[in-house]
Amino acid sequence: MRYLMTFAYDGTNYSGYQVQPNKNTIQFQIEKELTKINSNNKVTIHASGRTDAHVHALNQMAHFDLDKELDCEKLKESLNKLLPSDIYIKKIKNVSDDFHARFNVVKKEYMYKINMGEYNPIEQNYVYQYNKKLNVEEMTKALEYIKGEHDFKSFTKLDEGKDTVRTIYDATIEVDKNIMIITLAGSGFLRYMVRNIVGTLIEIGSGKRKSSDIKTILDSKDRKEAGITANANGLYLKKVEY
Amino acid sequence: MRYLMTFAYDGTNYSGYQVQPNKNTIQFQIEKELTKINSNNKVTIHASGRTDAHVHALNQMAHFDLDKELDCEKLKESLNKLLPSDIYIKKIKNVSDDFHARFNVVKKEYMYKINMGEYNPIEQNYVYQYNKKLNVEEMTKALEYIKGEHDFKSFTKLDEGKDTVRTIYDATIEVDKNIMIITLAGSGFLRYMVRNIVGTLIEIGSGKRKSSDIKTILDSKDRKEAGITANANGLYLKKVEY
Repeated sequence: MRYLMTFAYDGTNYSGYQVQPNKNTIQFQIEKELTKINSNNKVTIHASGRTDAHVHALNQMAHFDLDKELDCEKLKESLNKLLPSDIYIKKIKNVSDDFHARFNVVKKEYMYKINMGEYNPIEQNYVYQYNKKLNVEEMTKALEYIKGEHDFKSFTKLDEGKDTVRTIYDATIEVDKNIMIITLAGSGFLRYMVRNIVGTLIEIGSGKRKSSDIKTILDSKDRKEAGITANANGLYLKKVEY
Repeated sequence: MRYLMTFAYDGTNYSGYQVQPNKNTIQFQIEKELTKINSNNKVTIHASGRTDAHVHALNQMAHFDLDKELDCEKLKESLNKLLPSDIYIKKIKNVSDDFHARFNVVKKEYMYKINMGEYNPIEQNYVYQYNKKLNVEEMTKALEYIKGEHDFKSFTKLDEGKDTVRTIYDATIEVDKNIMIITLAGSGFLRYMVRNIVGTLIEIGSGKRKSSDIKTILDSKDRKEAGITANANGLYLKKVEY
């Protein structure tokens, strides 16, 4: 039986989503508890994609197979009882055997939070503490160059031979008091792509670069042309669509 | 020279504000660093009041004396460099020698956050995860009985002979999506008073009690008549006025 689950996590205390030797990861925690439920037969979960160390998820998705058919609501409850309090399963449903949580992704949405006000110790792990005003207008203009289908090679870690063309369906900036929220929705995202785009947007918002630089950076297909990689703390995987 | 500072902290990893033997507290951390700045002559800080373990502060206030006169802005910077990232000094100013951060308090404001929506692992240490709808109208009615001068003996830990009369100047409830924020402003607050009031309000909002029960509870002057002590995670010291 194949199951698809929606889950949220606080990435603060984890070395990212994906299993790594001797590291505490989200995948490791969930697989450990699902394996117990599956009479100790190893369960592997397949997520929509990885998230880096300290990155959060509001609605990550993953599929997995169990030996037996279990009631989804009861399975969710049992799993939540076993899991640490910083990982929470929001929903589990049955899917067909050919469904794949990574390959079937149609759209993904990420959100990035920046504190433009005074340093806030209460949100230290949940926003990027920029602590200075940013030019929202100029950053919003820059988003126009991000939207659409582009080769995002300049905004990712070099990985020879990999297809780096992605489509950004929507890109918005909202500001509520001193908190800026950048939301990017696209067909898929390359490694560090959101954080590299946000880092470049911050350089635009602080006046170091112009909004139209995005075009030049995309055309260059050179990581060195883009800006810094923004902090992991401010990033949230918000939604995955199939 | 006497100084008055405004500071914020994430109470998650602390056993409360006040120094206690073998415990990590906010006061301990700040005094340790201020003592270094004061050429290792012990500095004691006097806050507007304590906060319990895991309670947060947006604007706590404390006074302290140093042997020498230091530039307030530089002192703030040095202190923030030494302090852990979950404590942040927002402002330091000079005050007269007879100013006292506790005795001179005129008004204090506390805020309490309740999540009425689904459990959110990202906010586990920053809201009370009630995870069910509450009757806002009935709770708002109950606030009318809280306002004004009352003997709050029923809402505090028994402490014989202590004056338990306090004045609540303002009490409000705001709801933003699934987050309810209860704000109480008053002349002062007794131990556990905000959390006991909030616990009782939750019982009213869930239909276990009527809003007018607040009057009966106040009149009884008996802690057993009031509701549960709400979780420390959701509580924030928001403002202190002199």
